Amino acid sequence: MLCGMFGYRCIATDGKARLGRLQTPHGEVETPVFMPVGTAGSVKGVTPDQLIAAGAQMILGNTYHLMLRPGAETVARLGGLHRVMAWDAPLLTDSGGYQVFSLAHMRKVSAEGVTFQSHIDGSAVELTPAMAVRVQRLLGADVIMQLDECPPSQADRDTVAAAVERSARWARLCRDAWQQPLEEKRGQTPFSADACHSAQGKYQALFGIQQGGVHADLRAASAAALVELDLPGYAVGGVSVGEGHEALCDVLDATDGQLPRCRPRYLMGVGEPRDIIAAVIRGIDMFDCVLPTRNGRNAQAFTWHGRLRLRNARHAEDAAPLDEMCDCYTCRHYSRGVLRHLFMAKEMLGPTLVTIHNLHFFSTFMIAIHEAIAAGTLKASANAWLEAIYEGDE
Amino acid sequence: MLCGMFGYRCIATDGKARLGRLQTPHGEVETPVFMPVGTAGSVKGVTPDQLIAAGAQMILGNTYHLMLRPGAETVARLGGLHRVMAWDAPLLTDSGGYQVFSLAHMRKVSAEGVTFQSHIDGSAVELTPAMAVRVQRLLGADVIMQLDECPPSQADRDTVAAAVERSARWARLCRDAWQQPLEEKRGQTPFSADACHSAQGKYQALFGIQQGGVHADLRAASAAALVELDLPGYAVGGVSVGEGHEALCDVLDATDGQLPRCRPRYLMGVGEPRDIIAAVIRGIDMFDCVLPTRNGRNAQAFTWHGRLRLRNARHAEDAAPLDEMCDCYTCRHYSRGVLRHLFMAKEMLGPTLVTIHNLHFFSTFMIAIHEAIAAGTLKASANAWLEAIYEGDE
Repeated sequence: MLCGMFGYRCIATDGKARLGRLQTPHGEVETPVFMPVGTAGSVKGVTPDQLIAAGAQMILGNTYHLMLRPGAETVARLGGLHRVMAWDAPLLTDSGGYQVFSLAHMRKVSAEGVTFQSHIDGSAVELTPAMAVRVQRLLGADVIMQLDECPPSQADRDTVAAAVERSARWARLCRDAWQQPLEEKRGQTPFSADACHSAQGKYQALFGIQQGGVHADLRAASAAALVELDLPGYAVGGVSVGEGHEALCDVLDATDGQLPRCRPRYLMGVGEPRDIIAAVIRGIDMFDCVLPTRNGRNAQAFTWHGRLRLRNARHAEDAAPLDEMCDCYTCRHYSRGVLRHLFMAKEMLGPTLVTIHNLHFFSTFMIAIHEAIAAGTLKASANAWLEAIYEGDE
Repeated sequence: MLCGMFGYRCIATDGKARLGRLQTPHGEVETPVFMPVGTAGSVKGVTPDQLIAAGAQMILGNTYHLMLRPGAETVARLGGLHRVMAWDAPLLTDSGGYQVFSLAHMRKVSAEGVTFQSHIDGSAVELTPAMAVRVQRLLGADVIMQLDECPPSQADRDTVAAAVERSARWARLCRDAWQQPLEEKRGQTPFSADACHSAQGKYQALFGIQQGGVHADLRAASAAALVELDLPGYAVGGVSVGEGHEALCDVLDATDGQLPRCRPRYLMGVGEPRDIIAAVIRGIDMFDCVLPTRNGRNAQAFTWHGRLRLRNARHAEDAAPLDEMCDCYTCRHYSRGVLRHLFMAKEMLGPTLVTIHNLHFFSTFMIAIHEAIAAGTLKASANAWLEAIYEGDE
């Protein structure tokens, strides 16, 4: 499927697992792809040059954070989110829905949208499907997401069913807004754009988000309602909210049959290596998670032999790199002992260096997945990787 | 003057101002040189690659911080401070004296040295001239400094005179320790080195430090006592402690006549552009200061048209770079509006990016000084620069 500057094509398969290419107005991405998270206008602690060197192909920005600060209009006046993040490569923004339901206080949800209190200054903010699309068109990412309602994992079936219905309705409203030309004036600065284009004049692909919790019939109904809209891509939402690995696998077992094979499929918020493998094996193409960055800032380093906790005293005089086989900037220049010292001394460089290493680990992990799919050996390889990765954890 | 792998040669002069080359075991430095400060094993927030790209030639580490954490032996076991900082270029360590007198609590000074309480865990620590040299030989910088006593600017003449005498005595003890082979075993790891060499086996140049406050006769006596030791370099200490620009100039008016022209002269802790210019005009070759890094972390950017305070609301939607003429990484990729947002959102990248810009500003400032000395136009150029730099301050 190719639509203007956006499209997905499958290059090779290994069972349901797919090696593919995602084409966007800011370049092509090899899938399955892992997207580092740049919450508030930066991937915390790393420059775009360091991101590229660590192998990042595509990154994610959070609409919720950016609409509150500095504001979507300000981002647009500063040239759009690509310019703000100094990131001239593929970029995705979520719709804000997930953060509204996980971060904001005093939510009020209705058929029209959601109102909430900003976690920054307590002000009342409204978010409707049309506004979520408008904000994302001002931000200007290559992939934008529908507004959805993401219930917690312990929600009862009725709550989940209501969220499915509401999310399906919001998907249609988002689609309608996306297909309208953007035409408005705020203050001195006019923003306008053709249908499906950002305020910066680039095509944007709108993805729908499947909900339904762990209920197979609700998942099926949610997917069917989205597919009817014929969107450029589809996401599996409402997972990684505490349902556990087995329940995630159960949900994903049906995905390949529920979502069209000609479109990219994105599993939101998933980043545990074992979950990524399980999802790739079930046909997922895109992932995002704060795991490599948040854990990196917290002195935890991913390696092919388990995670290291760098504050542990045993690393204090260890002159070896995090991973002997790793060729990231951090491993080429710093030892475990030095990294531990930087964390103990609260030097900013510690979080930056371990984030760089972790991002490189995730890129390398995805490349290993690509190669295994191409060779038709994904399941066997994955078992060996996961055994080493999880058995060596500190 | 060239001594083994270390030496200074003057290339050109403009009045007392000198364009020169400092040769060290880790490469050559063009002087006058500004050294960014890497207090505790890193120049805060920037990688060595970013430092080099910002034009840094030589950097400084703080013995006081490193001897307390992670400890000089640990640094030596991790390969020495060059390896710890991933800095394969010239490096200087101070002796710890200045921080003992400015940071530590419960100091007790005697003829033999100083005991103090660690600011990290309150433990009692002793520092003698021989220990200051031993610690710096374990760290392994190219230039090491004598232990000195640095009285506050409001100290009376008797206190300053006593500090001069004590510092002169300590200089001789440091010289003696430096000229002894280093031979010791601590725990499992033996450290040893020839006279004047680091535990890593590289030649180290020991610099003496002139004290004497604002008293011309004490300054002269201090210099005379140091010059008698025939050290590879000399520093002007006990300034930048609140004495003011005019008093600094008065002290430096005598420096060229007090310290040998064949040796490098280092003005410790000075970094205000107007002080740097005044000192270069009076024959100083080396500088260090936290100004570009500390102010950068604090959202203050140096430009040729004054300092910008990036938290000011007027920058919020400014798509211009910090300085239109600047070609640093930050100015090539980020606008003032974006940098302001990163500070408002407390993103780590804000401090990193403005630090990179400020370091680049200081490198460019020193290169402009080099060119003006070579052209014989330093005083006229300097007046024009300083007028613009200070008149445009926010």
